[in-house]
Amino acid sequence: MKQTNDDFDKFHRKPLQVSHAQKLLAAYGKPGPVEQIALEESHNRYLAEEIKAPHPFPRFRRSGMDGYAVRAEDTSGCSSEHVVWLDVIDEVPCGFVSDKEVTPGTAMRIMTGAQVPEGANAVVMLEMTEQREYEGSIQVGLKRKIETGKNITPIGFEVDEGEVLMLPGRRIQAGEISVLASFGVHQVTVYQKPRIAIFSTGSELLTVEEPLQPGKIRNSNTYMLASQVREAGGEPYILEAVMDDLALAKAKVERALQEYDAVITSGGVSVGDYDIMGDFVRSDSVDMLYNKIAMRPGSVTTAAVKDGKLLFALSGNPGACFVGFELFVRPFIQQTLGSDKPYLTEWTAVLAQDYTKVNAFTRFVRGRLDARDGILYAVPAKVDESSVMVTIKDSDCLIVIPPAKEKTPAGSKVKVLMLKGSPL
Amino acid sequence: MKQTNDDFDKFHRKPLQVSHAQKLLAAYGKPGPVEQIALEESHNRYLAEEIKAPHPFPRFRRSGMDGYAVRAEDTSGCSSEHVVWLDVIDEVPCGFVSDKEVTPGTAMRIMTGAQVPEGANAVVMLEMTEQREYEGSIQVGLKRKIETGKNITPIGFEVDEGEVLMLPGRRIQAGEISVLASFGVHQVTVYQKPRIAIFSTGSELLTVEEPLQPGKIRNSNTYMLASQVREAGGEPYILEAVMDDLALAKAKVERALQEYDAVITSGGVSVGDYDIMGDFVRSDSVDMLYNKIAMRPGSVTTAAVKDGKLLFALSGNPGACFVGFELFVRPFIQQTLGSDKPYLTEWTAVLAQDYTKVNAFTRFVRGRLDARDGILYAVPAKVDESSVMVTIKDSDCLIVIPPAKEKTPAGSKVKVLMLKGSPL
Repeated sequence: MKQTNDDFDKFHRKPLQVSHAQKLLAAYGKPGPVEQIALEESHNRYLAEEIKAPHPFPRFRRSGMDGYAVRAEDTSGCSSEHVVWLDVIDEVPCGFVSDKEVTPGTAMRIMTGAQVPEGANAVVMLEMTEQREYEGSIQVGLKRKIETGKNITPIGFEVDEGEVLMLPGRRIQAGEISVLASFGVHQVTVYQKPRIAIFSTGSELLTVEEPLQPGKIRNSNTYMLASQVREAGGEPYILEAVMDDLALAKAKVERALQEYDAVITSGGVSVGDYDIMGDFVRSDSVDMLYNKIAMRPGSVTTAAVKDGKLLFALSGNPGACFVGFELFVRPFIQQTLGSDKPYLTEWTAVLAQDYTKVNAFTRFVRGRLDARDGILYAVPAKVDESSVMVTIKDSDCLIVIPPAKEKTPAGSKVKVLMLKGSPL
Repeated sequence: MKQTNDDFDKFHRKPLQVSHAQKLLAAYGKPGPVEQIALEESHNRYLAEEIKAPHPFPRFRRSGMDGYAVRAEDTSGCSSEHVVWLDVIDEVPCGFVSDKEVTPGTAMRIMTGAQVPEGANAVVMLEMTEQREYEGSIQVGLKRKIETGKNITPIGFEVDEGEVLMLPGRRIQAGEISVLASFGVHQVTVYQKPRIAIFSTGSELLTVEEPLQPGKIRNSNTYMLASQVREAGGEPYILEAVMDDLALAKAKVERALQEYDAVITSGGVSVGDYDIMGDFVRSDSVDMLYNKIAMRPGSVTTAAVKDGKLLFALSGNPGACFVGFELFVRPFIQQTLGSDKPYLTEWTAVLAQDYTKVNAFTRFVRGRLDARDGILYAVPAKVDESSVMVTIKDSDCLIVIPPAKEKTPAGSKVKVLMLKGSPL
């Protein structure tokens, strides 16, 4: 209790802009090691190879219809008064190839998706034809002229041979898997999931299983962060909480920095007697990158580096912790997964209600998006104090409110950062 | 090859509207069995219990600042000329409770997040105070009047006791986990993942490992569908392809309908000789629900039921297969996970480019959303033929183009269905 006013400045805190802090961190976010996995296991992993088409797609002239493969020239004289009859010389089911050729006066029965035979240059829909037996042959009757190329998907219609289909860093989902399977990529090279250690600090924290005790609260941030790490593409490791003891905290965090790809802590970064992470990042144990960001919530958000590994010391306030992860940790994880767009997608929306708080720092307000009549509205959460956790679950974006001396009125254009995996 | 025009109507196909088909299916989509899992394992699972707050949150008066807990009344005479000195009788770190009471003329040192002691009704920021030792006591000096309640988060500020926080069917992500942890829910009751069997049909299909063969294509739909099943919350089981043999297909699909919660097939539903699923759903093996939908792509989309289990026979065209899953199978999976909003979220956007195709059926066009200056634009994919797979990966919405005889011009308001897990 010997604290004096001098202590308030003990961190020598100089606020950085969010983008400046992101730039500092980006020096450490590099694509990580890769591994090969089966295509079936690749959902939500991140591609570590460039996918080029080994062949055009489709790679043969593909029938778009059930019907008859014909020479368009043979149909030039057709009309409902003048049926042209062609000899049906073969049939081509899907997956089979005819060894015959469509010559003048002939046609082949063909199925949707089958390879159009040599000589044919159009497919007539089955519904447009008649069939008959004539002098021992099966014949198809056509009543209408057809253009060359009709109902045939040409070679390379979707993809040319050698075309780059996907770049490294791409998240693999249904559409990507469809492409990989179509081109025979049954073993996919993906980035390994970065292993992220998570600590909470503070002896006020109960584990989630413990009964309540006076004055204490349950540790919720580590579980929340683990979920955020998973959603961002990493593998979370929840480690035992760091108590309010600097030597112990140092030992635990230093060890984690050796063993994992990055370390997140929550809590212990505010100005105060027991703000242990603040003390830690000012020690000679690590090199501090920043310990104040010009933002709300989470201005105390801190980062440091040791042997090229990042320590993210996030605020212990749930709202600030959530935002700090999305702005700083998620991009790092995305960078190790090869992403060239590691930051949250930014859109411009219309503020649906007045936002009355004013601040010298940029605010990242939890909110919900809604599109009505072509206008994208951003609806701020009712309570967005940094300490509030209950509104995180209802948010699908962060509304960016620049420093303001007056309220931001409804109807203002605001930037919104889209939260991934959100309940849109 | 004895097919006649009569065969074209052999399915007696009567197109249903999408919403009508969804209504028919909804009779079979009921919340499924539940299981208990650890909170740490609950990311992206679906809650099967109502979560009510067992206590208010915060459940004690919480200090929002590092500073001193005081009686506001004691500060009424403060000014920079007239410093009021209070005896500091205790300190309250986070997680601890003082057994003393703040009485007139006294104060307590308190940390952010700590429980405000009895008798105190405001917290003064550390930065606003001075400290001194006076006659053996530690004293804090205040220069400014403070209002009652200042820097104290009241009990129940976020949540009242008994308040319903989350309903069954909610997808558990970071925000939900934060709530569950805060209220000590370390074992979560979730819906079991529905087990979905996936078959492809057609002897034209190579497995993804096989070398190319003339006329054949690789099976990509089953892998794509497996990814869609995962994203929707189910557990996919890729079964051996069903060849073009009705008896074999019947046996395989019937067995799968017994063993799994639902069965998806892709392919074999168009009009044609080898369209085996068409034959299957018209057999007495299952009861057909519908075999034509008034939509593009995927008008041949079919569904049937056997012993209360659904068979979704989707188109073999990748684009149509993808859309059929999102419109019909995903809602079923979501219903078994307790969701009361099982369908894709619908927004209204502005069409960014002319859409030139016309059709008697509603089109679900793959597209991309973009928000510029507060306007939400929907950009249709360049090629969206039902057979095309390459544009699925770049889509984050389906643009709904109603039946039209003329092109839909740029600037039109269009409904868009938001694809989950999309690359926004």
